[in-house]
Amino acid sequence: MTHFADRLFAAVQAKGNPLCVGFDPRWESLPAEIRRRHGSASLDAAADAYEEFCLRVLELVAPLVPVIKPQSAFFEACGPRGLAVLQRLLRTAREHGLLTILDSKRGDIASTATAYAEAALGGVRLGEARLPVWDADALTVNPYLGRDAIEPFLACARQCGGGVFVLVRTSNPGAGLFQDLKVAQDAGEPRPLYLRVAEAVRAWSRENLGACGYGDVGAVVGATYPAELAQLRDLLPEVPFLVPGFGVQGGTADDVAPAFRNGQGAVVNSSRGILFPFKPEESDWEARIKAATRATIAALDRNSA
Amino acid sequence: MTHFADRLFAAVQAKGNPLCVGFDPRWESLPAEIRRRHGSASLDAAADAYEEFCLRVLELVAPLVPVIKPQSAFFEACGPRGLAVLQRLLRTAREHGLLTILDSKRGDIASTATAYAEAALGGVRLGEARLPVWDADALTVNPYLGRDAIEPFLACARQCGGGVFVLVRTSNPGAGLFQDLKVAQDAGEPRPLYLRVAEAVRAWSRENLGACGYGDVGAVVGATYPAELAQLRDLLPEVPFLVPGFGVQGGTADDVAPAFRNGQGAVVNSSRGILFPFKPEESDWEARIKAATRATIAALDRNSA
Repeated sequence: MTHFADRLFAAVQAKGNPLCVGFDPRWESLPAEIRRRHGSASLDAAADAYEEFCLRVLELVAPLVPVIKPQSAFFEACGPRGLAVLQRLLRTAREHGLLTILDSKRGDIASTATAYAEAALGGVRLGEARLPVWDADALTVNPYLGRDAIEPFLACARQCGGGVFVLVRTSNPGAGLFQDLKVAQDAGEPRPLYLRVAEAVRAWSRENLGACGYGDVGAVVGATYPAELAQLRDLLPEVPFLVPGFGVQGGTADDVAPAFRNGQGAVVNSSRGILFPFKPEESDWEARIKAATRATIAALDRNSA
Repeated sequence: MTHFADRLFAAVQAKGNPLCVGFDPRWESLPAEIRRRHGSASLDAAADAYEEFCLRVLELVAPLVPVIKPQSAFFEACGPRGLAVLQRLLRTAREHGLLTILDSKRGDIASTATAYAEAALGGVRLGEARLPVWDADALTVNPYLGRDAIEPFLACARQCGGGVFVLVRTSNPGAGLFQDLKVAQDAGEPRPLYLRVAEAVRAWSRENLGACGYGDVGAVVGATYPAELAQLRDLLPEVPFLVPGFGVQGGTADDVAPAFRNGQGAVVNSSRGILFPFKPEESDWEARIKAATRATIAALDRNSA
């Protein structure tokens, strides 16, 4: 069983870039031809349209990038059939040799967290069997519930060589409301909450380092906060970073450069910038997706390698 | 359109008790007869077993309690068919006149939070139509991502008379790792993070009060922390409380008493204590569920009314 960080960075090396494609399908942005083919009469029809679109995008980007990150919310928004599409997307990505990060930002008390973790990573125990559900390589989790809410995810990840990305500094404009609150220290000046979360992530990640020197617990740090990104990279030298907020959310290639140490240590996610670089009525959407992927890879290459 | 808090407390009044039944189905705890009938060969079979069990429990408790709270994790653990069971459980509960709280603890950047919110509450926009997905009366959300991650949930709830319960002080033993961190104040002693979250919840809740005097933004406060519960009730007089951690997790009827003002203002959740007061081989499990529900109601009545 190969360690998650070794798998992640081997995939980055093999493809020669750290781009993670975020699958955030949105009905109103889909190519008009796909919308027309399926219609909007029901959630099932929308799920079928998502499936056609996502699997086509996957074929386009699979030769180019190492990892994808489906956003659970958009598949859940199509109900049960949307979740079947999520399952098929994840399975097909694995068949293409891609790594998969399920972006679900889960967090709950231990017994519930175990259910989330098994479904996302190792598989659910049913009698004597262990059955895969979403079967991703890693997932995102929310730290607010504390230690015993994170531990089931770590345990599950370590049984199957998976990874866990903990939200540390999120990419949204209002992230600071709680994440920037200054926490009093026993000694010294108060420091923001996200640094306390970061320290917990560092300790968890150090429990299980891969041959590459990185741990199996990563940090989500938004590209929209480059100063915090640089600070966190210094504080967390062994922690893999998942950097959202690149592209449409405002993060630039310069902004994400501090996430890397010697060109390694992070994957940078782009969702809308890769999935939707076209207007719905434009018929050359596939060429545009491919071009946007190549342009994003080139932009990252200038700055991070 | 009746305000969420008015609907919630009217339902509590009508049933004469504040008990919320948590639907956390677990394969290994199901009645053996149900497990045998469906088998454990696949996730679909497990989902079918969950459906039979949950709908039967719903029939038993519907005449007795005002509200149910399905835990999304356990349905997700059965894959797409598990989500179809969740959908049917929520719909059937509404047909029985019960209120429903989807316990999914979601939280994400604004555009993603909107997808979660529409799916949980008001319905997803598809072309001109708005189609219901989970269609609950309220959901639980995680505050770590901050203001703009919460606002889509509030907007969506207010369009459809729904409610939002924000995690403030969770019931798990490790909750304090971040929630208890002391936040420096401009003036005065540092105070724990959960009080800062509580103040944000108070402000959000006051934006839209119902005729009953309570807002549509509630707080999740664990029964396992009675001192914090009393402190938060004083701080948040207009905020409806959802109190988990009662029963199997350790909270007693005495512990939850501080959640109430004049016998109102909170619903108390019990999951395993209601769903599984029997051993799998015991054939009188339905009688036991009914007895456990009645006993829990009686215990709450002595202390909260």
